[in-house]
Parts: sequence; C-alpha cells; structure tokens
Amino acid sequence: MQLLLLSNSRSPDGGYLTHAVAPLRALAGERRKTLFVPFAAVTTSWDDYTANVANSLAGLGWAFTGAHTVDADAAGRYELILVGGGNTFQLVAECRRRGWLPAIAERVRAGTPYSGWSAGANLACPTLCTTNDMPIVDPGGFDALGLIGFQINPHYNNALPPGHQGETRNERIAEFLVANPAATVVGLPEGDWLVGDGARMTLHGPHTGYVFRPGKAPEEVRDGMAIG
Amino acid sequence: MQLLLLSNSRSPDGGYLTHAVAPLRALAGERRKTLFVPFAAVTTSWDDYTANVANSLAGLGWAFTGAHTVDADAAGRYELILVGGGNTFQLVAECRRRGWLPAIAERVRAGTPYSGWSAGANLACPTLCTTNDMPIVDPGGFDALGLIGFQINPHYNNALPPGHQGETRNERIAEFLVANPAATVVGLPEGDWLVGDGARMTLHGPHTGYVFRPGKAPEEVRDGMAIG
Repeated sequence: MQLLLLSNSRSPDGGYLTHAVAPLRALAGERRKTLFVPFAAVTTSWDDYTANVANSLAGLGWAFTGAHTVDADAAGRYELILVGGGNTFQLVAECRRRGWLPAIAERVRAGTPYSGWSAGANLACPTLCTTNDMPIVDPGGFDALGLIGFQINPHYNNALPPGHQGETRNERIAEFLVANPAATVVGLPEGDWLVGDGARMTLHGPHTGYVFRPGKAPEEVRDGMAIG
Repeated sequence: MQLLLLSNSRSPDGGYLTHAVAPLRALAGERRKTLFVPFAAVTTSWDDYTANVANSLAGLGWAFTGAHTVDADAAGRYELILVGGGNTFQLVAECRRRGWLPAIAERVRAGTPYSGWSAGANLACPTLCTTNDMPIVDPGGFDALGLIGFQINPHYNNALPPGHQGETRNERIAEFLVANPAATVVGLPEGDWLVGDGARMTLHGPHTGYVFRPGKAPEEVRDGMAIG
C-alpha cells in the first residue's frame, strides 16, 4: 500500500493544502485519474468541495471525479484516491451506505495510492474512535478502512481555551486507551503527515507528534521518525 | 417530569458540584434514596466515582446507590436519579447494554426527579449527537433518553486554543443542524443549568446561553429565561 495521511488541510502559513502538494506529488508519481471523496463536507456541497480541492491542487495536473457522482463499483477506474476532511461521522456514514468502504479498501490494498486529511486520515484507521468531530449522524458502526494498525488523532494539540473545564486531548486519548487497551494512538499536530506502506509509517512536518500507548508516557516522534 | 440538567460539574469558582447543591436540593425536596449512574467514568472506577459524588454532596443527606451495583429492574426503588458526567459514548453504551435506558425513562416520566451534568445532561436529550466527547466506544445507537425535545451542547464555549484550525463549537453545531434540520440545540455554558418539566425548561446561572436553530442566528438566553 501507499498511504499519505495528513493531520489537516491548512498549512502552518494558512494556505489551503499548500503543505500537501509536495507529498501528494511524491505519492502520485505519473498517476492522474483521481477519485475525490467529499462526503465529510456538511455545510459545503459535495460539488463545491470537489471543485475547491481540484482548484487548490490544480498545479498537480490531476483529473478529479467526485465519489458522489459515481457508483462504488467504479472504484477500479481511478489511479488515486483522495479523501477530504470535514465531519468523520458523516464521511463514514456515507461511505458505508454507498458501498465505498469495501471498494476503497480493496483498491488501496491492490496498490492504488490513498491520501486523506483530517477525517480522511481517520478513515484510514481501524475505527473512527479518535476523531475530534461532533457525532452529528450515526455512522452505522465505528469501523473504518483499517489500512493502518493504529489510530490517528488529527489536529493534535493538548491546549484548551482559557478557563475551559472540559477534557484535554490527552485525557480523551487516555480514556480511549482504557476502553481499547490493545490500541495505539498517534497525536498528529496540524501541519504534519504520515507516509508509508501501512505496515511502516513515518512522520513528517514541522511539529513534534506523540505516540500514546496504554500505561506508558506519550512518546515523541519527529520529522523523519517511524511510528515504532 | 422534574429535570435539572447542568452543563458541567465544576462551578466557576472551581469547586466540585458546589454550584449544583442548591438546585439539587430544590429538585429533591424530601427525597433521599438516590440512584447514581456512574457509567460515564472511564479513568476512574465506578465505585470511586459514586463515592466521590456522595462525598461532595454529603450536605444534601442523600443515600447513594451506584447503578453498576444493581439491576435495571430495581429502578423503582429510588426516589431520585442522578447521572454523572464523563464520556457520553460509554455512558450510553453501558446504559443500553444493562437496560437502564428504558428503565430510567420510565421512572422519570412517572415522576422521579432526574438530574445530570455534562454527559448526564446529554443523556436526557433525544440523542447523544451534540456531545463534545471522543467516540471511544460504539454506543450501539445514538438514541438517548429523550426526556426533552431539544439537544444540549454542554461546556458551551465558542473559543479555540490559539492558532488551532479545527472547527469552532458554532461550526460543529451548524453542521449538526444541516444534518438534522428539525432540531434545536442549546449551547449551555459551564456553570449554567436548565430546570423544568421537560416541556418547559428555564436557563439559570451566571453566563449567557445560546439557542441554535437551522437557518437562524443564535438566540441569547439568560438567567431565568425559558428555552422558547
């Protein structure tokens, strides 16, 4: 497998997907025919979302088809699969309902490169359990694509707004690990990404990530380091 | 019905449940035999959670029984039902698995006063869809008790940590309302609570709450005002 999983869509300088261009180019090689999965968009139409992403990534020369415009049995027509961020629950719900979960997993395991950011990175995980999103719709089950063996927490940041008494991100991840003691979670800061073949994934980007395992202190992981 | 739904457990001065004591006393009247539902606790044991709450509310003179120590068919033995905060997904999962969802709803509709904070306030809503919690376990369905006709967003606050690019709370609630256009959401700030009979609920506390409806600007609601 060839996977590129980004924490988020905005680069540290605020440009939309600008930090994603170089790793996306490296992932794609000569491939151009791209299936874009827009189902995480809730307040933007899927047509608009597909057009916005195609526009932002125009420099790559890819041809984009929105997954809302074709059936899941057409998955084999595309050379690349790209999954946008938004709401993870709606993304999983729509992918499940339309048959895209098995179709995408099959294509990616057969060699089609996969990339996604935020909710699209969560979709590559065993489950959606480490999303930060509000559960606005029932996804019909928490299982996701399972392309990697660990969970990603995108937009990772342990800060709270001043005075806020809700759980910190680390507390939330600790709760997840109590409920799921065989799991590993990678806290992936905004601006960073993971790249690899699924079995071996390496962190890249300007910020320090953290690997969380039950009963252990979080382990730092920096640019170029593998998730051990 | 008699309902008291608190945003959170910490009063603005930082004391655990101190702001809850007066409204809990008003809710209970002469009732003392209390069922405490501790299932939202993940990193604390349910025994410890029940003991901690009993200790914090010792001044009320209530007798606490943890719902993890009795069967749901014993619900009729208790004069009060109190549901603690923590993780809403685990709370709903355990209540569903143990039969407490119908048992609690039946008792509360028959007149047993109900109170809960944070996840315990979300449990009173039609669904868990407006929780802020991480989906650490699949709750087996998003339906909750449905004691009120609207959704609560507890710990309501529209701030983000500095520099963070994730969705604001208002953006999350807007997404929920696109996916659920017949719904109403009350953003309940920390330190505030709602009290009433289910059909009519009034906000109390030091902070301004907000009522969110599809296609409308958020409406302010202050101490003593009903959710219209």
